[in-house]
Amino acid sequence: MMSAPAESPYQLRQRIRRGQHQGNTSGLAAGFVQCNLAILPVDYADEFLRFCQLNPRPCPLIAVSSKPGEFMLPEVGEDVDIRTDVPAYQLFEKGEPTRQVQDLSSHWRDDLVTFMLGCSFSFEEALLADGLEIRNISEKVNVPMYRTSLPCKQAGRFSGNMVVSMRPMKPADAIRAIQICSRFPAVHGAPVHFGDPAQIGISDINQPDFGDAVSIHEGEVPVFWACGVTPQLAIREAKPPFCITHSPGCMLVTDLLNSKLSVF
Amino acid sequence: MMSAPAESPYQLRQRIRRGQHQGNTSGLAAGFVQCNLAILPVDYADEFLRFCQLNPRPCPLIAVSSKPGEFMLPEVGEDVDIRTDVPAYQLFEKGEPTRQVQDLSSHWRDDLVTFMLGCSFSFEEALLADGLEIRNISEKVNVPMYRTSLPCKQAGRFSGNMVVSMRPMKPADAIRAIQICSRFPAVHGAPVHFGDPAQIGISDINQPDFGDAVSIHEGEVPVFWACGVTPQLAIREAKPPFCITHSPGCMLVTDLLNSKLSVF
Repeated sequence: MMSAPAESPYQLRQRIRRGQHQGNTSGLAAGFVQCNLAILPVDYADEFLRFCQLNPRPCPLIAVSSKPGEFMLPEVGEDVDIRTDVPAYQLFEKGEPTRQVQDLSSHWRDDLVTFMLGCSFSFEEALLADGLEIRNISEKVNVPMYRTSLPCKQAGRFSGNMVVSMRPMKPADAIRAIQICSRFPAVHGAPVHFGDPAQIGISDINQPDFGDAVSIHEGEVPVFWACGVTPQLAIREAKPPFCITHSPGCMLVTDLLNSKLSVF
Repeated sequence: MMSAPAESPYQLRQRIRRGQHQGNTSGLAAGFVQCNLAILPVDYADEFLRFCQLNPRPCPLIAVSSKPGEFMLPEVGEDVDIRTDVPAYQLFEKGEPTRQVQDLSSHWRDDLVTFMLGCSFSFEEALLADGLEIRNISEKVNVPMYRTSLPCKQAGRFSGNMVVSMRPMKPADAIRAIQICSRFPAVHGAPVHFGDPAQIGISDINQPDFGDAVSIHEGEVPVFWACGVTPQLAIREAKPPFCITHSPGCMLVTDLLNSKLSVF
C-alpha cells in the first residue's frame, strides 16, 4: 500500500484561496518555508526595510514584493497571490488592530509593499529532525513569547524592544540547538539568550506576554530566540495609517525549501 | 619601522630542541596548532586509538605516528622529532607519574606510538579573535579543570570520566562561543555543558581538580568544554607499564594552521 503523496505548498495555497483551509498553517506543507507578513504603504516601506536590515535576528527578510501595489509574488512560489493565499490577515489603522479578514481583495491598495519574514516553524522542524523535543509542540500550545528590555536598532519611525520566544531545554540540548539554528540565519538564527529571564527584562517566565506558558522541567534552562512578533510591535510604534500582517499562526506557505535556507 | 617577523613553529621547535626555550608554549607561534601528546607502547596503541575515536570531544585526534618506534613526524611539521621538540615531558610507569624530562632520547623505545590530540589553545585563539574575553587568559592563570560524572565510552583497558575545562561567560557570549567552537571539532568542538555545575558532578566550582580557579562575574554562567586531561586519566586507569605525555602547558607546536581545522 502506498501512502498518499504529501500536499504541495501550491496545492495548500489553492485550497486556502478557495476558502477550503482556514486557520493555522503549523505543521502543514512540511519542509517548506512559511513566512511572517508585513504589508505597508510605500512611504513606510524604505524605513521598514532598513529596520529589518538593522535587526536581522527578529526581522529576517526572506523576500519583498517587486513594486508597490504588486500582489503576485513569484519570488516565493508558483502563482502566489498575497491577497488570497494566506488563511487570515490582521488589518491595522494607525498602529491599532482593527479587524481580521480572510481575503484582502477588497482592501488592496496600489501603494502596498509586502515584506516576507522568516518564521520559527523552519528551525523547529530542523530541531525536531535532530531528535530534540520542542516543549510547545509536545504540549500542543503556542510558543510562549515575551517582551524584553533588549532594544532594537531604530530606523525612522520604526523602533521598539525585541520580543523573544522561549523553549526550555537541558543545557546539552541547548548547545545542540544553538548549533542547528546557527545554520538558519534567515529564520531567526541562533538564540539570543539562555538562563536567567531577568537579565533580558522578563519578570515572570510563567506569564508570557503572547502565546502560552509551557512547563520547564528540573535541569532545564529557558532558551530565548528573537521572535517575529518584534516587527509587529515596531509597526504599532510607527503607526502607519493602514497596514496588514498575517493573523498569528496563519502564515504564507512558500515553495522555498527550509533546507535551502541553510548557510552551511 | 618594520616589526620583526613572528617566529615560525619550525624556528620555535629548533630553539626548544637546543634547550633555548623551556616551559610553557601558551601564546607562542600564534595561529598554529599545538597538540597534547600521548606516547604509548604498541600493545596499548590500538585500544587507545579506539578510545579516541569513541570519545572525540575530549580526545580529538590530530595525527598518529606512522609506525611503532617512529620519532620523526612529518605529518605535523618540518623536521619534527618528538624526542626533542617538546619543552618538557612527563614519564609514567604503570599509570603513575615518575619524572619529568626535557629530552626523550635516552627513554625512547622501538615500540612507542605517538598520538597527537587537539588542544584548547586553538579555540581560545579563535574566541579572542572574535573579541570574547577568556577569563583564565585575562587573569593570567591556568584554565580551571574539573573531574565530572560524564562517563567516557570504554575501549579495552581505557576508561574513565570526562575532565572539563571551564570559562565563565555572559549567555550571549556563550552562544557566540558555541558557534565559533562548533567550527573546530578537532580541538574539542562545542562546549558539553553550561550552567549548573552539579548537573555534571562538579560539587564546588571554586575548587578545580586541576589548574586554577577564576572569577565568575555577576550575570555570567560557567561554560564547560571537554578537556585534554581526560585521556591522561584514562591512561592512568589503563596502567601501561611505560608511557609518556607532554608536561602540562608544554605542547608540541606543529606547522598546521589553526584556521585549517575549521570545518566550515
